[in-house]
Amino acid sequence: MCISTYCTFLFLIISLCITVPVKSSNGCGYDACNLGDPNKLNVHIVPHTHDDVGWLKTVDQYYYGARENIQHAGVQYILDSVIHSLEENPDRRFIYVEIAFFWRWWNQQTNETRTKVKNFVNEGRLEFISGGWCMNDEASTHYNSIIDQHSLGAEFLRDQFGECARPKIGWQIDPFGHSREQASILAQMGFDGLFFGRADYQDIEQRQKIKTMEMIWQASTNLGDQSWLFTGVLPNGYGPPGSFCFDIFCDGEPIMDDPRLHDYNVPERVQKFIQIAHDEALAFATNHIIMTMGSDFQYGNANHWFKNLDKLIKYVNAEQANGSNVNVFYSTPSCYLYALNKVGRSWTIKTDDFFPYAHHPHGFWTGYFTSRAALKRYERHSNNILQVTRQLNAFANTNLRNSIFRLSEAMGVVQHHDAVSGTEKQEVAFDYAMRLAEGIDAAVDVINKAYDKLLPKDNQSLPNVPQFLCQLTNISECLPIEGQDRFTLTLWNPTGHTISHHVRVPVTKNYTILDSTGHVILADLIPISEPTKKIPGRKSFAMNQLIFKAILPALGFNTYYFEVKNNTLLTNKINDEQEIIITKDDKCILQNEYLQVEFDCQGNLNKIINLKKNIVVPFTAQGFYWYTSFAGNNSRAEFQASGAYIFRPNSSDPQPVSTKRSITCIKTTTVQSAIIIFNDWTSQEINLYDNANILEVEWTVGPIPIDDNIGKEIILRYDTDIKSQSKFYTDANGREVLERIRDYRPTWNYSKVESVSGNYYPINSRIWIKEPNRQFTILTDRSEGGSSIYDGSIEIMVHRRTFYDDALGVDEPLNETAFDDGLVVRGRHFLIIESPASSALYHRVGSQQLYMHPLATYALPQLSYVNYSTTYHQTWSGLENDLPLNIHLLTFDQLDTKQYLIRVEHYFELNEDDTYSNSVIFDLQKIFQSQGIIIDIVELTLSGNLPLNNMKRLQWSTTNKTLSKMNILKEISLEDLNIILNPMEIRTFLVTVE
Amino acid sequence: MCISTYCTFLFLIISLCITVPVKSSNGCGYDACNLGDPNKLNVHIVPHTHDDVGWLKTVDQYYYGARENIQHAGVQYILDSVIHSLEENPDRRFIYVEIAFFWRWWNQQTNETRTKVKNFVNEGRLEFISGGWCMNDEASTHYNSIIDQHSLGAEFLRDQFGECARPKIGWQIDPFGHSREQASILAQMGFDGLFFGRADYQDIEQRQKIKTMEMIWQASTNLGDQSWLFTGVLPNGYGPPGSFCFDIFCDGEPIMDDPRLHDYNVPERVQKFIQIAHDEALAFATNHIIMTMGSDFQYGNANHWFKNLDKLIKYVNAEQANGSNVNVFYSTPSCYLYALNKVGRSWTIKTDDFFPYAHHPHGFWTGYFTSRAALKRYERHSNNILQVTRQLNAFANTNLRNSIFRLSEAMGVVQHHDAVSGTEKQEVAFDYAMRLAEGIDAAVDVINKAYDKLLPKDNQSLPNVPQFLCQLTNISECLPIEGQDRFTLTLWNPTGHTISHHVRVPVTKNYTILDSTGHVILADLIPISEPTKKIPGRKSFAMNQLIFKAILPALGFNTYYFEVKNNTLLTNKINDEQEIIITKDDKCILQNEYLQVEFDCQGNLNKIINLKKNIVVPFTAQGFYWYTSFAGNNSRAEFQASGAYIFRPNSSDPQPVSTKRSITCIKTTTVQSAIIIFNDWTSQEINLYDNANILEVEWTVGPIPIDDNIGKEIILRYDTDIKSQSKFYTDANGREVLERIRDYRPTWNYSKVESVSGNYYPINSRIWIKEPNRQFTILTDRSEGGSSIYDGSIEIMVHRRTFYDDALGVDEPLNETAFDDGLVVRGRHFLIIESPASSALYHRVGSQQLYMHPLATYALPQLSYVNYSTTYHQTWSGLENDLPLNIHLLTFDQLDTKQYLIRVEHYFELNEDDTYSNSVIFDLQKIFQSQGIIIDIVELTLSGNLPLNNMKRLQWSTTNKTLSKMNILKEISLEDLNIILNPMEIRTFLVTVE
Repeated sequence: MCISTYCTFLFLIISLCITVPVKSSNGCGYDACNLGDPNKLNVHIVPHTHDDVGWLKTVDQYYYGARENIQHAGVQYILDSVIHSLEENPDRRFIYVEIAFFWRWWNQQTNETRTKVKNFVNEGRLEFISGGWCMNDEASTHYNSIIDQHSLGAEFLRDQFGECARPKIGWQIDPFGHSREQASILAQMGFDGLFFGRADYQDIEQRQKIKTMEMIWQASTNLGDQSWLFTGVLPNGYGPPGSFCFDIFCDGEPIMDDPRLHDYNVPERVQKFIQIAHDEALAFATNHIIMTMGSDFQYGNANHWFKNLDKLIKYVNAEQANGSNVNVFYSTPSCYLYALNKVGRSWTIKTDDFFPYAHHPHGFWTGYFTSRAALKRYERHSNNILQVTRQLNAFANTNLRNSIFRLSEAMGVVQHHDAVSGTEKQEVAFDYAMRLAEGIDAAVDVINKAYDKLLPKDNQSLPNVPQFLCQLTNISECLPIEGQDRFTLTLWNPTGHTISHHVRVPVTKNYTILDSTGHVILADLIPISEPTKKIPGRKSFAMNQLIFKAILPALGFNTYYFEVKNNTLLTNKINDEQEIIITKDDKCILQNEYLQVEFDCQGNLNKIINLKKNIVVPFTAQGFYWYTSFAGNNSRAEFQASGAYIFRPNSSDPQPVSTKRSITCIKTTTVQSAIIIFNDWTSQEINLYDNANILEVEWTVGPIPIDDNIGKEIILRYDTDIKSQSKFYTDANGREVLERIRDYRPTWNYSKVESVSGNYYPINSRIWIKEPNRQFTILTDRSEGGSSIYDGSIEIMVHRRTFYDDALGVDEPLNETAFDDGLVVRGRHFLIIESPASSALYHRVGSQQLYMHPLATYALPQLSYVNYSTTYHQTWSGLENDLPLNIHLLTFDQLDTKQYLIRVEHYFELNEDDTYSNSVIFDLQKIFQSQGIIIDIVELTLSGNLPLNNMKRLQWSTTNKTLSKMNILKEISLEDLNIILNPMEIRTFLVTVE
Repeated sequence: MCISTYCTFLFLIISLCITVPVKSSNGCGYDACNLGDPNKLNVHIVPHTHDDVGWLKTVDQYYYGARENIQHAGVQYILDSVIHSLEENPDRRFIYVEIAFFWRWWNQQTNETRTKVKNFVNEGRLEFISGGWCMNDEASTHYNSIIDQHSLGAEFLRDQFGECARPKIGWQIDPFGHSREQASILAQMGFDGLFFGRADYQDIEQRQKIKTMEMIWQASTNLGDQSWLFTGVLPNGYGPPGSFCFDIFCDGEPIMDDPRLHDYNVPERVQKFIQIAHDEALAFATNHIIMTMGSDFQYGNANHWFKNLDKLIKYVNAEQANGSNVNVFYSTPSCYLYALNKVGRSWTIKTDDFFPYAHHPHGFWTGYFTSRAALKRYERHSNNILQVTRQLNAFANTNLRNSIFRLSEAMGVVQHHDAVSGTEKQEVAFDYAMRLAEGIDAAVDVINKAYDKLLPKDNQSLPNVPQFLCQLTNISECLPIEGQDRFTLTLWNPTGHTISHHVRVPVTKNYTILDSTGHVILADLIPISEPTKKIPGRKSFAMNQLIFKAILPALGFNTYYFEVKNNTLLTNKINDEQEIIITKDDKCILQNEYLQVEFDCQGNLNKIINLKKNIVVPFTAQGFYWYTSFAGNNSRAEFQASGAYIFRPNSSDPQPVSTKRSITCIKTTTVQSAIIIFNDWTSQEINLYDNANILEVEWTVGPIPIDDNIGKEIILRYDTDIKSQSKFYTDANGREVLERIRDYRPTWNYSKVESVSGNYYPINSRIWIKEPNRQFTILTDRSEGGSSIYDGSIEIMVHRRTFYDDALGVDEPLNETAFDDGLVVRGRHFLIIESPASSALYHRVGSQQLYMHPLATYALPQLSYVNYSTTYHQTWSGLENDLPLNIHLLTFDQLDTKQYLIRVEHYFELNEDDTYSNSVIFDLQKIFQSQGIIIDIVELTLSGNLPLNNMKRLQWSTTNKTLSKMNILKEISLEDLNIILNPMEIRTFLVTVE
């Protein structure tokens, strides 16, 4: 089947439209591989560069090689010079990984250079490995954005180069721990393998001993062998073996082979290399080994490397004449993988993941699970806007994909393992945030153009009434509406299901709110909390907020019209037309039909009761604690400091942030809140909304005081009586959940040194503990680190500020400042008290709604309600009916006027819910009801760059005698657009409508 | 006239024989220059790299880029990458300077690359500037070796590239002070100009103010306008202007010109550049300015530079549309020079030199005049061997020029301004010495092959009796002859005049010495002095030495046959068959028919009397003193330390090395010696030989003690009553002599800060003070620093050892060690007491004989004297008669069986001697009496790479209204081979014989 062409990439000077599939040219792919000599030790030399998409410098500074005083690194020069070096010797090979950089470079190349590069790609000499926009972090990324960033790179490569450039090998060489979901996603993208450089030092030691550095990772408990992925731990991180680093910034001795000059060193270099090859081979299973010849931003002068590698290869192989069995040649990760595959042996399996990562007994890289908590939230928020913008563009048929690219690109950049991870320098963090902000600005234009089509009732030419975002409503600030007599609030629901959503609008006046049917909505006016008003940088004069419940249609919007009640500004004093109860430092119970939440008069959360199920969870303690960051000079493992990467408390007992707390309870019809202030930099507001079965905990932390020169890592801890038996459960990238056992690793005999940090895991969306009849689940609004250090306890690190750098390169303590002080971070936890059997329904749905939150846009139409409602639609949905509850519309991306890329997802796991853990069928045409009739449909791999029927993954056998099929064939016909989705399955389609 | 081809360069894989002259291709030379826009400020961008031929790393380490932990520098990569960058844009230009590196690189290139490079050269895009083997030091080099090193590079360039590659511009950008002789030599080589980067900060300040950064240097008081050289001080050392350094090791901000990316900086960069151009123009005389875009070992990745320069040029010139008058383009020093020439203005003149160089008030670079005194001697000694080897090769017609190349090459390397200057790291100094040693080893092979032809009386096949050197005879050690019953000593006299020479042979037995006529020679057996016996590392058992006078034929040899007297080993006790007087700590007078030298019983030199002229010079003091090296951290000018470069005493009063001294006088027929021991690390032996009119002072210094953590700079001071009136005289590179005036500079109003160091000048061969009837001259055996700090006083720094680095890059204190202790250095001064009118005769002849010393080779023929004398010639001369006394055979180099390069020199200055300061005529054929009849002769430029008749230098006019002719036409015919030489003239000929 042939898919017609589609074009992308706004910024490309020449946008090439190509037809997929393109036939492999003879030169690329596995057929182009040198498979060595079966009777020799084959050394695959893999020249590569590792180019951080931002870290110590911004992505563009790295691209250009600016700010060289910070770090010598300029990607433009790397690519220039590699291309030249490939020209010089046809044996040479190179791999390139980060498309964010390659795209920047490609934009500036002449046709002549592009042709040259295409030839190298077609000859298999330049190979794109991984091929994502970046090499994403695995601990703090969400699956939606991992898929997007890989797809963005894959799309570029397909459009520019065709099939020869399709990435087939995962290359997560630098990320600090590896998630199972990442492997599963890569497998679903059609990848044949994954290599990485970092794994726990104990794990590696064991694997080297028993030659299991390479394995088959069964990366999903739901998806079977379509999630299996051959996985290899690289021998030397991702660097070259000792003394063979030939980069311009290395000091490996070059091969000095002119006998007429001093220091002729060929024999020494050759013998040393042969020794290293034999040493490396001891830890690997076959007579093939890989050597990663490159490192961070290397190959700025590729000739430095290649000239010496050429000689090394020549002289080492010449030694075969003297009996050496070492056979060395240029290769790529694909070719190495293919050689291993051809060996035809069985491989051990791996079913858990590679978290947490430690490089020495005190070096657990678990701090970055939380580092830069505000950036982590902003990234998640930006994705929310991106997905909404795509949906609006698709449903409104505005065909403005190119305008969305700016945000897609920024999101692609921010997935980098020194971006959302929080392990970049402060200036770089600012740059990431700016990129997202610029992307959002561009997205807002698209949103406006889409609403310009969706809102007006006729195609009449209407005055431009721009929709705008109020992104600071989390601190109750929305300046443009302050003092206005009328404004509208339009909420887009990006989920496929009707939702009920509580909206808070900070106001300086009181308003009547009219819903889409013209009815006045019940809304409560409540004061803005003291902690919020104190937040540095808040400019709003609003002292109050209106809160009301909105019922939003699936994949659609409602507009709420706000009309001033009386034109006097509100003061702190709430007018008394509403029923509102306020208590201070008194016992207090929040209660609705589902939940009862009890506080004592000291402000302690004592108990949560699930009233429907009669599940009682008493809390022995709940609140903020801090660990003291270890203050070390990093000169030895024992002196490892806590920093941006590393979490190392100097004691396993965190201390409470305060001995006392104050509590204020406010109850209205819509919401019941307990505002608990621990001290002047920590507070929480626990909100129980009417009809809600999930309890919201809004926490506010900061500025973390450091006048005492002590770094602090702040956790929010929930201590219950649940007999959790050392176990807890955390998700991987917002999808499948893994069981964690305290002080235990599934695949090796774990020696515990760090009792807290060594038990921390990434929490991308949820964590729970349970016993047979009770489960306590917490959903998070961003990625955080957390654990269960005691039975019954869940702790989540929400914010941190360290005084020392942890000597892993960033060379700054994690000391975020804003407004001349530390950063205040606010976020939300959502608590679910349920039985294990019914928890999934709440946490799956809750978590999905949390990251695909309704998007609020405001506008200031100078029209009375009557005129407004005559002119504009106030409600709209892309669906006639909701999607099945277990179906999520993961991607809805208009490619051109007729074509859409769509991903639909079953987001329940097997066996977690009696109803929703079953396969589900739905009619894809329903989503396209407003776009037209589907006239063509092609199922693609997850990355969207290959028809699924063309995917041919390598087969592997495992030591437990199973052979992976790994290739799936799913039929779909235009007659019957009913899609079957199995638990945790994502299906990707290219859809053409008429 | 066409010269037939000749081939050179042993190590070249492909030895190309080309015919000179080659016609300029249209593309190269001045015709290829962009001369800018007469109405704009023209900025000549000169991309260049400055590649030290050894400094912190050895020349081969620099070539290969080894030892990168010391310094990131690899010349192979520089040349690779520059060639590639030139390919990418035809506007780009580059210059290359150091042929030692270029030759190493060229040897390894393919024909394809060579062709490419030749095209660049022919297009004027790759230009060889200076083109010496290295960029030689100017303070401690001898003119013989400067000429050789330039000629070595020039020859390579002519052979490989022809006329387009002929260097025309001097490029002494880094040397630390500039000698007039260097300029004169370059002018005589046909150069059109000279640029350098370093000049005294006061000088530069003044020149910038009055726009005299560029001038006409009248570089000889003897040679007229053939020595004139346009000379420019570069605007910014030799580096790029601030913030425009685009090397991979720089941190100048790149031009970030993609408006879609962050940090777009084109406007800022353009404005900054325009500002810098205008600022620079303020200090220069015309609307042309030069910017040196490069620095030490830059262009390792040329693309880094060129990519940004391309953009800079484009955007800066684009600004002309907005009224900017800055016109910027790629250029070369030649083209910049040519543009200045075309401006047609007059230039100020310069007649003195640029010594000493200071970069700040306490930073006088006068320490290196003496640094590594042993290496400085070894270099001079090696040249002695090189010239002798060339002569032997030529006279014996062994045609082994390729074998001599190793020493020529080593000598070329060692002329580098961080080599013989003594400013390299210790390991590098060792490497230089090793290169010379290897070169000498190779030379000894040639010497043997030559003597194999010259020594045997018939062409009989004789047993191989190798000649060997005893290079440690300066410490009375010659191990191979120890205990031998017979050996021969053959002395080659490399001067054109019969000389009388006193030979010392350390012996363990007593010998009868038979001269070439079979007569027994009068020889004295005297004890080896105590200081000599104590020298660390001396392995000899010899306690005595034989001393005798040898009369040697011009350009020829005598062999002395040593036959043991009785076979008992000598002990300390001298046998009493000879007349020998020894006194200890008593008054003592050394006297011969010319000189009387008086010591008191404390060992003080009291008086020297020239008996023939009745000139008495009383000495108020004579002996060793030390300055304490300033111990600073170099953080500011005031804290400038004394180091390898800088001499900065912490007081202007040196202290005597001891309060007492011992004196031992030994008098024999041949020599009268006063051995004066100051302490256990300083001594002098003052020797008056029979018939000698020059007094020899052999000084021994070291190990300089540093147990007190104090750096010490040792001088040998001679204080007389001569009323020298602040004036003293020092030579430039062993030739012309310049008048020096204490605390004075001829061209600016000098502010004195450093009263000692600021008055130090290089002494390459001689220094004197005088009054109307008396002149006290000292000849040195190597380059040393010295001065006359008080009237009547001459001080010469002979050795130094510092405790601090002077922060100029070498990053080591000058702390030479050997045998686990400091280095012992021994050298000689030769004192001449004469009238000013007759001094030249002695110092000219003496100095010439000193650097062209007879070369002693030993052999162990197992033949009785009778058999020996039957078999071998014992005397031989290349001349029938001596050359005129004022003629020196500077170069005698056999090119092939029929061709010779010869340089003859008049080595007296104008007006310094009534007889010898006149022009002289001689018949060139006389030198070739043993080679054959001259059938062709072509006069060449001094560098030997261009027929003199083809030399067309640019003309310049000076502010005193003279116009340089600068082009000379000298006729020579085969009919009349009489050569006229004027004072200080060197003439170079290519001679073909039959």
